[in-house]
Amino acid sequence: MSNISHRIKVFAPATVANVACGFDIMGLALENIGDELTVTKTDDGLLSIGEIVGADNIPTAPEKNVCTVAIKAMMDELDDASGFRVDINKNVAPGSGLGSSASSAAGAVFGANELLGRPFTRQQLVKYAMEGERVASEKAHADNVAPSLMGGFAVIRSYTPLDVFSIPYPEELAVAVIYPSVEVKTADAKKILKTEVALSAAITQWGNVAGLTAGLITKDFGLIERSLQDVIVEPIRSILIPCYDAMKEAALSAGALGCNISGSGPSVFALCKGEERAAQVAKAMGEVLSQYNVGYGHYVSKVNKKGCEVLSA
Amino acid sequence: MSNISHRIKVFAPATVANVACGFDIMGLALENIGDELTVTKTDDGLLSIGEIVGADNIPTAPEKNVCTVAIKAMMDELDDASGFRVDINKNVAPGSGLGSSASSAAGAVFGANELLGRPFTRQQLVKYAMEGERVASEKAHADNVAPSLMGGFAVIRSYTPLDVFSIPYPEELAVAVIYPSVEVKTADAKKILKTEVALSAAITQWGNVAGLTAGLITKDFGLIERSLQDVIVEPIRSILIPCYDAMKEAALSAGALGCNISGSGPSVFALCKGEERAAQVAKAMGEVLSQYNVGYGHYVSKVNKKGCEVLSA
Repeated sequence: MSNISHRIKVFAPATVANVACGFDIMGLALENIGDELTVTKTDDGLLSIGEIVGADNIPTAPEKNVCTVAIKAMMDELDDASGFRVDINKNVAPGSGLGSSASSAAGAVFGANELLGRPFTRQQLVKYAMEGERVASEKAHADNVAPSLMGGFAVIRSYTPLDVFSIPYPEELAVAVIYPSVEVKTADAKKILKTEVALSAAITQWGNVAGLTAGLITKDFGLIERSLQDVIVEPIRSILIPCYDAMKEAALSAGALGCNISGSGPSVFALCKGEERAAQVAKAMGEVLSQYNVGYGHYVSKVNKKGCEVLSA
Repeated sequence: MSNISHRIKVFAPATVANVACGFDIMGLALENIGDELTVTKTDDGLLSIGEIVGADNIPTAPEKNVCTVAIKAMMDELDDASGFRVDINKNVAPGSGLGSSASSAAGAVFGANELLGRPFTRQQLVKYAMEGERVASEKAHADNVAPSLMGGFAVIRSYTPLDVFSIPYPEELAVAVIYPSVEVKTADAKKILKTEVALSAAITQWGNVAGLTAGLITKDFGLIERSLQDVIVEPIRSILIPCYDAMKEAALSAGALGCNISGSGPSVFALCKGEERAAQVAKAMGEVLSQYNVGYGHYVSKVNKKGCEVLSA
């Protein structure tokens, strides 16, 4: 049996990737929902998964679990023989479109990095957490792990080389999330996208990306509202989500700045000015699903400023 | 003969459209170069073109000249029977890729608007100046007229409805422009573009758009530098420009933040930190053309903060 050197409990927030026009390049972190991980440093040099609470079918083999894969990627760059065990309390449902695997991967490297005395910045941890994403969805995407680690709005300017940065945003921004009880597999949601898009649509999209980026930084809610559009992905993916158009209409009628698919769905998010408005918007969206007897979970939260955080050490 | 009610002389800056990744959505205004227009308000209700200095082949028929077409679009929305005559001193060479027609169209509506007591804001004038662009190049694009009117960096988030805004940028930004003595017709430069693009390339492009927008607003020169890339248009259009790759390499070696095609070319611009650096960059780019005996003009300027301005009233 290995000696326990140290143990830490961390919170890793769920995230909304894409944020309408920012497909594959933008994500934001949520407040009230995220995985809790207990990361234990050992001196046996091994990586292992301990208890998993809150989800079935999470792989426990170290080479398949996102947590241990992410920690291994990090440890490969350090001259340190420590091992780690990760116990996972999953609050972000796999397949929800809220960055479930990213939350676990981000929390794992964040916790291990804390136990090692922070050899890496949060920004530097992104590339290791991405390796967790690679085993979860075949692509090492960063638009969930980056906001989960860094908090706020994260932008992935480039993957080769990796270039991730945070952008300022208005404090009042709040998010309403509806998670309909249906399954949309990320792989399926990727498959139905076209590999070619019309140049004219791409131009519209990057006009909105410029608008959203500028709107967030300069706190221009009107510009944020006008820019929260997606002409490339939403028209295709929304067909996988029950009552999508009606939910979106309800969100906008209830005063949301914009409404779109969270990640690859089925969760739907709405950005709002203020939590009170976000609560009204979540209610309006939920009522649409209730009308059609579709079950759902919902969350209302400000944008999470902090990203991953230590709960107890 | 009509009575002269009032006359104004205005300067309308040349512009660099696209700014690398911002194809069709972004433009910036230059300082030292632009058209000078004398706009005369008359009470005969007619629009006419007077003297044109500095360019041949500019149409003088009111329904074909960008100045009178733009003013007509503006007057169509006003209950005012004034006429206007426009005398044009063209300093921006048609076909240079520096927004020649835009400069004239912007200056014309700016001048007429001043003489009418400013019924419109500069931002509102954009859509009228765009009508000038429509007769010049068959498309009412805004990425030259907007920065010419408003100064600085202008973004066109959307054309339908028109949504144009300015973004802040670091004061130190300077521009080196090389105008090789070859002709590239906007229509030809449009034609060689593909109507479909790879989704992966589009994602790269909008990652850079987010980076450039954020970099400009937050004055992050490193981010600006990394984001000044264009994976969609430059690879195709650059083949129409002599010594393009060598000029770009020279610009970057001389310390430019980025280098790309101005509008549809053949002018090439480089963004730099400071005018001194921009002068060195312009020199380095010019030397490449000299080596191959290609003639050129060059300009070095800060980004023009003011946009169109009154020279004398």
